[in-house]
Amino acid sequence: MLTMGDESMSAFFTNELILDILEKYKLIWSLDHSLAALGWDSETYMPEEGVEERSISVSQLTLLKQKLLTDPSFISLVDKASEEKDLNDYEKGVVRVLERSIKVYRQLPPKLVEELTKTAEEAKVVWRRSRNENSFQTFQPYLEKIVSLSREAANHLGYKEHPYDALLDLYEEGLTSRDVDNVFNITVPATKAVLSRLLEEKLFPQKHPLEEASYDVEAMKKVNRVVTEKFGYDPKRFRMDISTHPFTIGLGIRDVRITTRYEGKDFKASLFSTIHEYGHALYELQNNEAFISTPLASGVSLGIHESQSRFWENVIGRSRSFCEAVFPILKDNLNFISQFTWEDVYYYFNTVKPSLIRVDSDEVSYNFHILLRYRLEKGLISGEINVSDLPELWCNAMDEYLGIRPKTYSEGVLQDIHWSQASFGYFPTYTLGNIISAQIRHYIIKELPDFNERVLNMDFTSIKEWLKEKVHRWGSTYTPKMLLEKMFGEELNPEHFTAYLREKYLNKKI
Amino acid sequence: MLTMGDESMSAFFTNELILDILEKYKLIWSLDHSLAALGWDSETYMPEEGVEERSISVSQLTLLKQKLLTDPSFISLVDKASEEKDLNDYEKGVVRVLERSIKVYRQLPPKLVEELTKTAEEAKVVWRRSRNENSFQTFQPYLEKIVSLSREAANHLGYKEHPYDALLDLYEEGLTSRDVDNVFNITVPATKAVLSRLLEEKLFPQKHPLEEASYDVEAMKKVNRVVTEKFGYDPKRFRMDISTHPFTIGLGIRDVRITTRYEGKDFKASLFSTIHEYGHALYELQNNEAFISTPLASGVSLGIHESQSRFWENVIGRSRSFCEAVFPILKDNLNFISQFTWEDVYYYFNTVKPSLIRVDSDEVSYNFHILLRYRLEKGLISGEINVSDLPELWCNAMDEYLGIRPKTYSEGVLQDIHWSQASFGYFPTYTLGNIISAQIRHYIIKELPDFNERVLNMDFTSIKEWLKEKVHRWGSTYTPKMLLEKMFGEELNPEHFTAYLREKYLNKKI
Repeated sequence: MLTMGDESMSAFFTNELILDILEKYKLIWSLDHSLAALGWDSETYMPEEGVEERSISVSQLTLLKQKLLTDPSFISLVDKASEEKDLNDYEKGVVRVLERSIKVYRQLPPKLVEELTKTAEEAKVVWRRSRNENSFQTFQPYLEKIVSLSREAANHLGYKEHPYDALLDLYEEGLTSRDVDNVFNITVPATKAVLSRLLEEKLFPQKHPLEEASYDVEAMKKVNRVVTEKFGYDPKRFRMDISTHPFTIGLGIRDVRITTRYEGKDFKASLFSTIHEYGHALYELQNNEAFISTPLASGVSLGIHESQSRFWENVIGRSRSFCEAVFPILKDNLNFISQFTWEDVYYYFNTVKPSLIRVDSDEVSYNFHILLRYRLEKGLISGEINVSDLPELWCNAMDEYLGIRPKTYSEGVLQDIHWSQASFGYFPTYTLGNIISAQIRHYIIKELPDFNERVLNMDFTSIKEWLKEKVHRWGSTYTPKMLLEKMFGEELNPEHFTAYLREKYLNKKI
Repeated sequence: MLTMGDESMSAFFTNELILDILEKYKLIWSLDHSLAALGWDSETYMPEEGVEERSISVSQLTLLKQKLLTDPSFISLVDKASEEKDLNDYEKGVVRVLERSIKVYRQLPPKLVEELTKTAEEAKVVWRRSRNENSFQTFQPYLEKIVSLSREAANHLGYKEHPYDALLDLYEEGLTSRDVDNVFNITVPATKAVLSRLLEEKLFPQKHPLEEASYDVEAMKKVNRVVTEKFGYDPKRFRMDISTHPFTIGLGIRDVRITTRYEGKDFKASLFSTIHEYGHALYELQNNEAFISTPLASGVSLGIHESQSRFWENVIGRSRSFCEAVFPILKDNLNFISQFTWEDVYYYFNTVKPSLIRVDSDEVSYNFHILLRYRLEKGLISGEINVSDLPELWCNAMDEYLGIRPKTYSEGVLQDIHWSQASFGYFPTYTLGNIISAQIRHYIIKELPDFNERVLNMDFTSIKEWLKEKVHRWGSTYTPKMLLEKMFGEELNPEHFTAYLREKYLNKKI
């Protein structure tokens, strides 16, 4: 049989019912593996016109996966297992993850799922056109339908306090609007204070000459390769390709792939998308090999995943130590760097400028973009906000939070793809990732007081080991909230993030 | 819904039962599509250690495919459809292909399939070791078991005259040892005559200085790209990658991929593997788009497929016209070519030298290698030959056919992977491909008398159109034998091949 590294599956799973479930789950996992491979291929190497045959295959496999998950005999196995008294944490994790997967199919009427899927498919096309034509009116009826179907879905899924909580939970297990409110109540005033002082006192530049530098794509590929090599990965389990929208995909614990992009200007865009995806990839790569082909085989939630990517991208990648350490690599490969110092590079990596566009935003202003979307989504789902009012509300909120107003729908309410895909509840996981990455920084430095020196020496072994021990190796064993408690002995705490912002942007110590 | 080009599915399939079958078949096709994508990925870009997770997924999907094909309700649909009176040729083709797929699972006891699969898996590993260590004794017990299981399989599958026919039919629908005997009865004496005269009179060289020329891999990639572009393909539906063993894989009619290899020496190895795979790819690419996701969606048999690859590789690629036409491309990219003429290149492409190794053989001696394997396989399956006698019989046959004797098992009986994979009955399809490629040449020249001139001008449009019309667009609609009748108005006729050999190698006219 398969050799699963040092740790064999049987050391983690012993309950007969669970073993039976895992055996049956192998096919579901295999469909996920195949869908991941097909997804990767579609974005990287698939010939353009293969798309229609690909979509037949993807929809057939997706339907089959749903059918297997909702097969009465499979559900009854999971139900039975959930009543077992002596399950260990891993076995409980298996039951929990499966119950969550099943729940969606069990509680949402197939007709509603079908309508949501169909509407979202049309809406995505219309959204793209609307954005290009700067016409909110074209998109409005689709968005209205999506909001009303999402509200209906929330009611079917159930919630304790706010219907939006049902949707939040789809993306971040257990997350409620009370949690998100708490995060913003603490971070918003503190971040506002940091932002206005740093802009006023010009502590960080808003623009940088390096943004205009054109780079050679092959040279930049080498930079990205060398940097990820310094971070460290096993080339037998990892690869890096190119796609329009960078992403990470785990085909398995031993086969994780990232993509990045090369636009030939503003090299930090390419570098930081690589570092960001590296963070995601490491989470998957450092999972426990005994979880191969089980429901615990990947990262537990979007928020925790984003904390890993943001930790590498921001906490490490945008730090003074890293800038000093990466400088020789940049200088060796990008000829225009020779006119600059590593501190120039640091300020280039850390320009702070309120932007209309979320994906172009810096660490300081980023979360305001999420706050804006969060408030609008919550109001839409509760019915307090009408779709027709969104453009106006969007502009007012941008003005209130960042003091800028979009002049077009395309740079305002139409900028993100998420709503067209009916992904209400997704945005807050981005802020969660930022918050948790700072919380990780706080605790990792307690245990590795020479953290900055390690980064400066490009010595990431202990840092990766810490992340593996605290986060990665658990896969989906614990809920995000349980994992935070286990990791830090405290729950989600936004104070670490605000302290990080002050320390970096006002005290200039990071 | 999907737009399927100009020809919609409904123009070809109207019977209600068939439409029902095609709807259900979509999932089976999707599994095939996914398995093809996974197979391509495994050979090209998969990180090395992804192999174990990949093998879980591939075996789960393969088992599921088998389960769907043998699902009683699916079988009964196919059985019912086979009794329908008014099916058109396409609909009959659907029933025929499905009956063939089902038959294997229906007639072979699952225990036997399992044992064959398990033994073959072990045998492949042992074969590789035995070949490296030049030890037939190590491999012998595995081969004995495979032969005995294959004989058992033949009995379950059934046959009219010879048990080997049951195995031949697995690879080439309807092919019998009577057919193969007929091919060799005609080709062997004629080929022997050609071979001895051409060697005696030194009409073609046995060696060529160009074999020693080292090439730049990037330059050779360009040659392969330019040559396939001259042949013509739609880059939106085709791609070319690198793998150790070149292959063609159709993920769909609109997504066909080939691989080639670059060993840095003997550039014809890289060029002709590319041309060979192009021939396979064109067959899949020029299939009827209305067959997408149906059982007719790919080439009908190994023999017909090989005729397409050999037609491009040998009939076109090794002809005087092509050598003259490709010469400027070679000269532009490979600097060592400048010391040679296009006729030098022609003789380099057409060295004729009896070789111990099948895959290194030329057009003239190649079929003797198949004859040898065919006779041994037939004797093994009938029980007239014992595995222990193979090495001796192999050496004697090589001596008899080509006048050379292997000195090691590795260059003799252990050279091919096929037997370790239990692929008895596969080899004859190679010779079939050679025979049919010459038969195609005979008939295409009748309709395109300026065939050579077209090749000389790199004008392949009418040639590809002819192949599409006669062969490609039918997919698996007709059996190989029916297709030959339809194509040529005659059955498999080896005389065209012997005529081709004489014309090329004695009269020097091709």
